[in-house]
Amino acid sequence: MSILVVGSVALDSVETPSGRIENALGGSATYFSVAASFFTREIKLVGIVGDDFPQEHIDFLLSRGIDLTGLERVSGKTFYWSGRYGDNLNVAETLSTELNVFEEFAPKLPESYRNVKRVFLANINPELQMDVLRQMKDVELAVCDTMNLWISERKAKLLETIKHVDVFVLNDAEARQLTGESNLNKAAKMVLNYGPSRVIIKKGEHGSVTFSKTSCFSSPAYPLENIVDPTGAGDTFAGGFLGYLASTQAFENPRVRGDQSKKVLGASAPRGDLSESNVRKAIVYGTVLASFNVEDFSLNRQRSLTRAEIESRFAEMRAITEF
Amino acid sequence: MSILVVGSVALDSVETPSGRIENALGGSATYFSVAASFFTREIKLVGIVGDDFPQEHIDFLLSRGIDLTGLERVSGKTFYWSGRYGDNLNVAETLSTELNVFEEFAPKLPESYRNVKRVFLANINPELQMDVLRQMKDVELAVCDTMNLWISERKAKLLETIKHVDVFVLNDAEARQLTGESNLNKAAKMVLNYGPSRVIIKKGEHGSVTFSKTSCFSSPAYPLENIVDPTGAGDTFAGGFLGYLASTQAFENPRVRGDQSKKVLGASAPRGDLSESNVRKAIVYGTVLASFNVEDFSLNRQRSLTRAEIESRFAEMRAITEF
Repeated sequence: MSILVVGSVALDSVETPSGRIENALGGSATYFSVAASFFTREIKLVGIVGDDFPQEHIDFLLSRGIDLTGLERVSGKTFYWSGRYGDNLNVAETLSTELNVFEEFAPKLPESYRNVKRVFLANINPELQMDVLRQMKDVELAVCDTMNLWISERKAKLLETIKHVDVFVLNDAEARQLTGESNLNKAAKMVLNYGPSRVIIKKGEHGSVTFSKTSCFSSPAYPLENIVDPTGAGDTFAGGFLGYLASTQAFENPRVRGDQSKKVLGASAPRGDLSESNVRKAIVYGTVLASFNVEDFSLNRQRSLTRAEIESRFAEMRAITEF
Repeated sequence: MSILVVGSVALDSVETPSGRIENALGGSATYFSVAASFFTREIKLVGIVGDDFPQEHIDFLLSRGIDLTGLERVSGKTFYWSGRYGDNLNVAETLSTELNVFEEFAPKLPESYRNVKRVFLANINPELQMDVLRQMKDVELAVCDTMNLWISERKAKLLETIKHVDVFVLNDAEARQLTGESNLNKAAKMVLNYGPSRVIIKKGEHGSVTFSKTSCFSSPAYPLENIVDPTGAGDTFAGGFLGYLASTQAFENPRVRGDQSKKVLGASAPRGDLSESNVRKAIVYGTVLASFNVEDFSLNRQRSLTRAEIESRFAEMRAITEF
């Protein structure tokens, strides 16, 4: 099952207590796509880079099976972010944000992207997120992220956009900022009232909590002892989440779902499995992917990561939560 | 199986965003004992109160089956604490601490207490905690709590005491303060190197994480939407934890444990069940008890709490963590 992702492709300079890296591969769409690529090779990226964007990064993304038909390459400089983390690795201090070619980014979906049914609207202006949804023909699952900037500067537009998404992913500080409510469980319920059928609140080292109208699921973070660089953890989480979901199908008997038009008794129709139990597994896979991401700068850990390592850590997540 | 608890019995005045209460029942030994009393009626308390301590509180503790032989009543005023919580309910601001009769507290175990095998050393001076251990004849399970004051003022004595305890319970800020390490997972491993076979780090709204040399268990907090007063949550957690453990037994075949002196083939010997899986259940029961405690001021919620409510919330904890 294909996934569309719209977001930034960037060059980052990051300093953490473990060291620093300059002009490394970054961007929300990048982190998302590479994480999802461990589960599916049907990822279609929409983004923009300047003519300074190194070919080796293009080659790396292509090697992960990511469709770059929707990656515009224009003259100018690529989106550049530089930031610093202190001992509290949950909070980044932005040193500079140079939007460059990203400033004029107006996502335009190639024709071959418009029938994709699942989309991740990474952290961009909520008006652009809405534009993307309008260009899609038949959305089955829209997942949306945001950031403090849009909550303070474009709140009305953001609230309009999330009316149209199924899953809203944000962090604890953003949930509190958006709702004005300090209790996260209450904040989550308020967010559900804005429209999404599910909200996932990311809590950094404390894992995540997700609510639908009828369920609550709490997942810890994987207990890492050494975190090198938290950049991209949230988008990697979303990539693992949607990537895993795209790789799983529920074989349902159409009769069970009351669809009497299909007369093939006993036949099964493959569908995306969006059951509560599969969504929970997807959240844990997202958590696992994020835990690998923060073990090295940029996307370096992902370059050697194997599916066997992912499965092993998934099993550990079960072992540390079962009682 | 009996449990000994040594700690404060106090009168508290507390202000939170939900309201305020004056001179209410409080104290670490009180919260611990009442929580444990939902699982066992064999709790022996050691503490001290002044002659101002209301008889109704004595009657309440006795009604919970708590043995008060070790509760000294002396002339003077009872330990008094007053504090305030703002919107961040994880942090209390102490307005005043009046030690009063607690200042001269030197725990002396009645003869009937000395054979008890399990003990909770609530947050008191680590030298007094050590004194209590010395007065016990045959300790099978010693659990110890502490606070920032002892870490800054009595660190050497605290490190000496925790060499002799099995389970060390502390909160995330205390773990960071004690070890100087900001990564909690690394801090936990450092604490294990100080001596205890298990460390439980309480993280308030984020639940708890526990480590032994060979295991890690992460439990969320119960997702409450309204927290009235967090006072006593940590001691209530410990009470639920040790109370549940005291109520469960492992029936082991002595031969399995290699004890060939017992020739009764196939016989089972009842023992306290300190298996990893039972310890995890105990942590979740502790979490559940703490969640009820914070729903009202002082120990008010516990006055109407039933075992059925506890079991129902325990089942919910499973439902929100399973995947």
